[in-house]
Order: sequence, then structure tokens, then C-alpha cells
Amino acid sequence: MKEYTPEYLDFLRDIIGRHDEEAARKELTGLHPADIAELYQDLDLDEAEFLYRLLDDQTAADVLMELDEDDRHKLLSAMSTEDIARQVIDHLDTDDAVDIIQELDEEDRDEILSHIDDVEQAGDIIDLLKYDEDTAGGIMGTEMIVVNENWSMPQCVQEMRKQAEDLDEIYYVYVVDNDYRLRGVFPLKKMITHPSVSKIKHVMEVDPVSVKTDTPVDELTLDFEKYDLVAMPVVDSIGRLVGQITVDDVMDEAREQSERDYQLASGLSGDVESDDTLFDQTKARLPWLLIGILGGIGNSIILGHFESGFAVNPAMALFIPLIGGTGGNVGIQSSAIIVQGLANGSLDVSGSAKQLFKELGVGLLNACIISLIVFVYNMFALGPTQVTTIAVSLSLFAVVVFASIFGTFVPLTLERFKIDPALATGPFISITNDIIGMVIYMSISSALLSALGPA
Amino acid sequence: MKEYTPEYLDFLRDIIGRHDEEAARKELTGLHPADIAELYQDLDLDEAEFLYRLLDDQTAADVLMELDEDDRHKLLSAMSTEDIARQVIDHLDTDDAVDIIQELDEEDRDEILSHIDDVEQAGDIIDLLKYDEDTAGGIMGTEMIVVNENWSMPQCVQEMRKQAEDLDEIYYVYVVDNDYRLRGVFPLKKMITHPSVSKIKHVMEVDPVSVKTDTPVDELTLDFEKYDLVAMPVVDSIGRLVGQITVDDVMDEAREQSERDYQLASGLSGDVESDDTLFDQTKARLPWLLIGILGGIGNSIILGHFESGFAVNPAMALFIPLIGGTGGNVGIQSSAIIVQGLANGSLDVSGSAKQLFKELGVGLLNACIISLIVFVYNMFALGPTQVTTIAVSLSLFAVVVFASIFGTFVPLTLERFKIDPALATGPFISITNDIIGMVIYMSISSALLSALGPA
Repeated sequence: MKEYTPEYLDFLRDIIGRHDEEAARKELTGLHPADIAELYQDLDLDEAEFLYRLLDDQTAADVLMELDEDDRHKLLSAMSTEDIARQVIDHLDTDDAVDIIQELDEEDRDEILSHIDDVEQAGDIIDLLKYDEDTAGGIMGTEMIVVNENWSMPQCVQEMRKQAEDLDEIYYVYVVDNDYRLRGVFPLKKMITHPSVSKIKHVMEVDPVSVKTDTPVDELTLDFEKYDLVAMPVVDSIGRLVGQITVDDVMDEAREQSERDYQLASGLSGDVESDDTLFDQTKARLPWLLIGILGGIGNSIILGHFESGFAVNPAMALFIPLIGGTGGNVGIQSSAIIVQGLANGSLDVSGSAKQLFKELGVGLLNACIISLIVFVYNMFALGPTQVTTIAVSLSLFAVVVFASIFGTFVPLTLERFKIDPALATGPFISITNDIIGMVIYMSISSALLSALGPA
Repeated sequence: MKEYTPEYLDFLRDIIGRHDEEAARKELTGLHPADIAELYQDLDLDEAEFLYRLLDDQTAADVLMELDEDDRHKLLSAMSTEDIARQVIDHLDTDDAVDIIQELDEEDRDEILSHIDDVEQAGDIIDLLKYDEDTAGGIMGTEMIVVNENWSMPQCVQEMRKQAEDLDEIYYVYVVDNDYRLRGVFPLKKMITHPSVSKIKHVMEVDPVSVKTDTPVDELTLDFEKYDLVAMPVVDSIGRLVGQITVDDVMDEAREQSERDYQLASGLSGDVESDDTLFDQTKARLPWLLIGILGGIGNSIILGHFESGFAVNPAMALFIPLIGGTGGNVGIQSSAIIVQGLANGSLDVSGSAKQLFKELGVGLLNACIISLIVFVYNMFALGPTQVTTIAVSLSLFAVVVFASIFGTFVPLTLERFKIDPALATGPFISITNDIIGMVIYMSISSALLSALGPA
């Protein structure tokens, strides 16, 4: 990975400051678009724009795709819709073009589409815009090499040569029948190992792994991982080839999905990055904090019913963090195991009952160990027959078992109702378990206190 | 993704029960090894073994690679070292072979290596075993197509044809000089578009992205994402080509890394899956729960110093969960943003000071909003001049600011000392902030209580 030193950036700033186009162009030569994008992000907007103007259209379009959405937006909003169509969209693959167009205002979209000179590309983009972003159709591109199953090898090679010119990379050649239904794939490797055969259908691999346009992206990500694919054909409901998904898009999606799960588990709503503005960060963080505050106030109301108890037996108050925290920790663990199992495909919602049963076992085992340890500690700290000693260990036992089951049950139930189970992790589960922990603790303490009196 | 219905599994179990090899073989025909592995995991061990024996060696070896480590271990431990060498290792790529050998007992390794008939493969495996598992050398394979830069195209094609026979997939042809130093890559696409040129060095892409053998895996994962690669050459310290890393291995690594971060954030130590045994799950979960218990006991000791205060002013106890929980939530958010930024490469440890400064801003903003909201609530619930009302809001303010800074500082510091920053997330940060929150809350309350007296 390219890293730019502060010295290099100063050197480059100096060149830009002198408006030395020749020297600047020399620095950009041979750089990968992703590296230019990184450079752009290290520079001020006007410095970056100076460099951007020196790029040829193709490179500029590629750099644009590599930028953060915010930075891309800044550059695009300075361009006319005609320039966006001719200088940017025209040089992009259809899947990237669709991503860009989706980021723009509704009103600009049609204008840009009307300025695209290549009618076929414009048509493909319009088709692609119809698909839901979270489905195979939403991330596929239409650039691929397609040959007819009845063609001979030399015919195919000639056709491939024609089609290949516009493509960056080719992984597979797709083979279709006369109705454009996907029949097979032909790995490029076979062009080397089987240079001359009569018909392509005799060397193609039949029954290739494919997805339908409405397959959810997280499902097809698992397919890519499972079958070690670099590209996958997409077919419509009657099996006609409509596009291709490549592994780089899938990797981006996989990264985004795991970041989203991680953010939800950490109480961050919305996609937030360390380089976002102070205001964006606060906006992403405040919602969960406020829910936590609501939970805390709820807890204060529950504990309020026991206020007189604290006056009589103040030792009860000391273990509030222990009970609440343990309930939260257990719940987070349980829900995380479920969310991860559902995400990586190792767990299926049909196995819910079995999973809950196992979790009951884990919960009971943890509960025994934890409440015993705390009992031994309190035996020495408070005395073995003290109400608090007994109440704390009994409550811990109940809280751990409850939190285990609850933390397993909630994400499984969300998944069953097609709601993102990751919503059930982090703050949600820890706040809920905290509150229920307090109810359990206060109920048991009250009961014991009135039965035994403060010892 | 293939899913087996309970009905299909019953049907298959019936075939296996009747030991009907012909029918069973028919069911397995045409299945991808990954699908057979999935079938295996749905069946009992003896049923799976029956199916496994019906597979040809190549398929059996591929299925083995797709299994969970536990299941693979069961199958391998029933085989002699000679069978492992001839029936399994011999049919695998070197990178997979190394993975399997590393999972075996030290004493079996040499025996297996001595049984490998292909001396070149055995030598490659021995070389690969020397690399650290977390580096490029540890995950690369040696199967690739290599041509000399001075060869002509027909010479290359002939050589490629020879080398390609043993390979599953080919993405790039690597071009080296007479000293085997990497000079360029040659995308297979060019075989179509540039079918005849004098020398390969005139069509190859020079200066390809490559990594050194000691590059950490998480770094090269970012390179794959950044440059949209499907394979990357690995060179030694003087630039000689020693291996290739393919995108499927990188995807597996990326999944593992994000799962590990997620597990650490959720208080799970060690790699735990929903289908692990009850004992394994408890083992992975108990450590953090016990640390949480220690934290809870620590909190009880801190609160113990204030025990008499609870007797005088029991309302203080009601807000313990609010203060502790908020500190924990804020800290988890802050540390998650840092851990994620470091993982996806958007944040660099050299920007620590700037990051801490921004976090101070976010913390102050959140602190103002939160303590104001709680003040307004308590003004009505308890009264505006009540000690508790003032103490709670003051403490919340201090706790939120502290937790923001602390949650940012700890992972950045760990990263600086080359310790995994993900260790600083989840339970660790929430327990620490819980305890420090209590110290702040009790200090402020005590001071106010002695200054103002219980109102």
C-alpha cells in the first residue's frame, strides 16, 4: 500500500503552488487511480482540483470512483450534467456508472442519461437503475464476454477479440443458447489448454454457479466465499444472462456489511468514519446514547421503588453495577454469536430451538460458576448469611440465565421476521438486560429482606 | 447457495442405511466440493464417512479443505500418514497443503512430507512452512504460470500450456527476468487482444502491484480491496518471484479478521461459533464475564466507601446504572470508531493528536446534550436544587467527556505498541469506564453532599 510522507506532500504542494503543470503531470504518471485518490484525500480541495484537471478523462473517471462519497460529491457538483455524462459516465463500467448516478439528485439523473452518447450503455444503465441496491441486480455490471454455444472456437475467439477491447479484465467467457439463456462458462484457461475444438459447448463448464437478479447481496457474498469465485453470472427469472458480478464489488460489500454489524454492535447508528466531521459523528452516536439514557432513567424509576430499602440496607446499592453489567455482558455475547452465525451462513433460523436449548446449557453453566465465585467473595466481605450475599448470588444466577436466553432469542426472532438481527446487539441488548437485571435483583432483594430482615 | 431440506437428508440417510453405493454415488455426482462438505456437516460421522469413501481422491481432498477444522481433524486422524500424503496432500495446491500440515501434530509432519512422491511439491511445502501464518508468505501458494521476459509469444503460449495443466484457475501470467526477478504481469485477456507480438516484454504490464513475503496479511487485504485485484505476486527481499496470493484466500482472511474484531468487541475470547460445543462456548465466554465480575466487585468496593451516603441520601443509588451505562456506551462507540478506522486503513496512528482533539469536541457536544436532558428530567422528578439532580448531571458531563477521550486514546496507544487495538473494545472499555464513572459520581456526590447536605 502506498503511503505518502509529509515531505512528499510538501514537495507536491510546492509544485501545485507554482502551478507547474509539467512537473505535476510527471508526478501523476504511472500512479494507480486508487493512489491518486489517496493523494487527493491528503490535499486541500483546490490543490486536489488542480491535479484532477491534469488527468485524462479515463483516469479522472477511475479516480472519481475511488474517492469517498463526500469528496466525489464535491467534485461532481462543480461539473455540468453534460460533462458528467461525457467525461465521467462514458468512461465507467455500467455498475460504477449506476453507483454514481444513484448518488446524484433525482432531477439531474435524467439529464445525465440523455447526454450519454452511447445509447446501448445508456439503456443498460436505465435497466440497472431498476434493481434494488441490495440485490444482485443492483451491483452487477453488463460488461462481459458472451458467446453462443453453437459457435466454433475460431468464431468465438474472433468475437471475444471484438468484445474484449472495451473490458478491463476478463475472467470467464459466458456461453448462451439462441435465446440468450446461460448454458455454461468457459474459463480463459481453456483457451490455452484446449486451443482448437469444434464447438464451444464441448469444452465449456456446464451448470455454472449463477444468481438471480433478486438474490440478496449478503447471500451471494457467501456464495463467492464458498465456491472461491472471481466472477458470477446473473440471470433473470427465466435463466437469461443479464449481467456479471465481480469479486471486487463483493469484497467491498462484504467489508461494508461487517462494518455495519460492528457499528451496530458498538452503538453507532449510520455509517460513521474516523474522518467524518464532528457534527456527523455526534449525529451517529447520539441516538443510542439517548436510548441508553432512557434505559438509565427507567432503571432509576425501578430502583426508586426500592429507595426505602437502600436506607435500611445500603449494601444492596453496592452491587447494582455488578448485576447490571453482568447481564449486559452475557446478553451481548449471546447475541453476537447468533448474529455472526447468521452472517457467515453457519447458522440457520430453522435451528432456533436447538440453539436456544444449547444456550440454556451455556447460561446455566456460566451462572453456576459466576454466582458461586461472587458468593465466596461476599461470604468473606459481608458474611455468609447476610441478605445481600444471598440476594446477589441468586440474582446473578437468574440474570445470567435470562440474559443468555434473551440474547439468543431476540436476534433469531428478528431474522425470522426479516429484520436485521444485528440491531439486537450492543446497546439494545445491554440496556434491556440491565433493566431486567434490576427488576430481578430488586424483586429477590425485597422478598429476602422482608423474609429475613437486614442481617 | 445450496440448502438441503430435511426431506432430502432423510432420503440420503435411507440410501446410506441400505449401503447402496451406486445410488449414493449418483447423488454426489456433479456436486461442488463445498456442497459435499456442507452435506457432510448435516450428517452423522459414520454416514459422512460412508459418502467420503465413495469420492475420488481429488474430490475427497477438495471436500476436506472445505470442512471445519474440527471435522477435518476427525477424518484425518483416522488416516495413516502415508494415506494423508498420497490421497490428500498430493491433490492439493501448496497453500492448502501447508494449512493442513500445520493443523497436524508436529511428529506427523515430517512423516507426511517424506511420503509425498512429488519432490518439487514437498520442497515447496517445506519452504512455505517457514513463513509466519499472518504474513503473505504464510498464505501464498507456489502454483502459477511464469514466463521469461525475453520469450516470444508462441514460446510463452507453449510454456503456458505445459504449466497450465496442473492449475485450477489462471488469472495472470507472471513475467520474470533471467534471475527470476518479477518484471511484469500479463493478463490473460491480452492473449485475446494481442495474439501475436515478438516478445512478451512488449505487451506485459510493467511495475505490477506485488507484496513481500513478510507483508502482514491485513495490510495485503487492504491492497486487494484498493486495487481490485484477483491475484497478487509475492516476491522475496531481492524481488524474486516466490509465490502468488489469490483473492479467495484473502476473502477468507478478511472474513476471519472482521469476525475476530467483532468477537473481541462482544466479549468473546477465542474463535467461537454457534455450532461449537457447550463446553467450548463456555470457555470462550467465561474469561470476559469473570473480568466483568472483578470489575463489578471493584465497583462494590468503591461504592462501599459511600455506603453511609446511601443511608442518608438513598436517591443517589438510583442513578448508578445511568452513569455507569452511559460511560460504557460512550467508550465503546469511541473505541469502535478507532478500531474500524485502523482496520480499513482510513486512519493512521500518526494522526492520533488530531483524532483525540476531534473526539474531545464530540465528547463535549454529547456531554452537554446528555447532561442537560437528564437535568431537565431530574428537575421534575427530584427538584432542581436537590443534590442528586446536580450531582448526576455534573457526573454525566465528566463521565461522557472522559469516556470519549479514554475510548479513543486506548486503542490508538495499543496500535502504537503493535498490540491488537480490538482488544480495547467491548467489555474492557465498558468495564473500565463503568468503574471510573463510579469514582467520578461518588466523588462529586460526596463533595456536594458535604457542601450542601441532603436537600
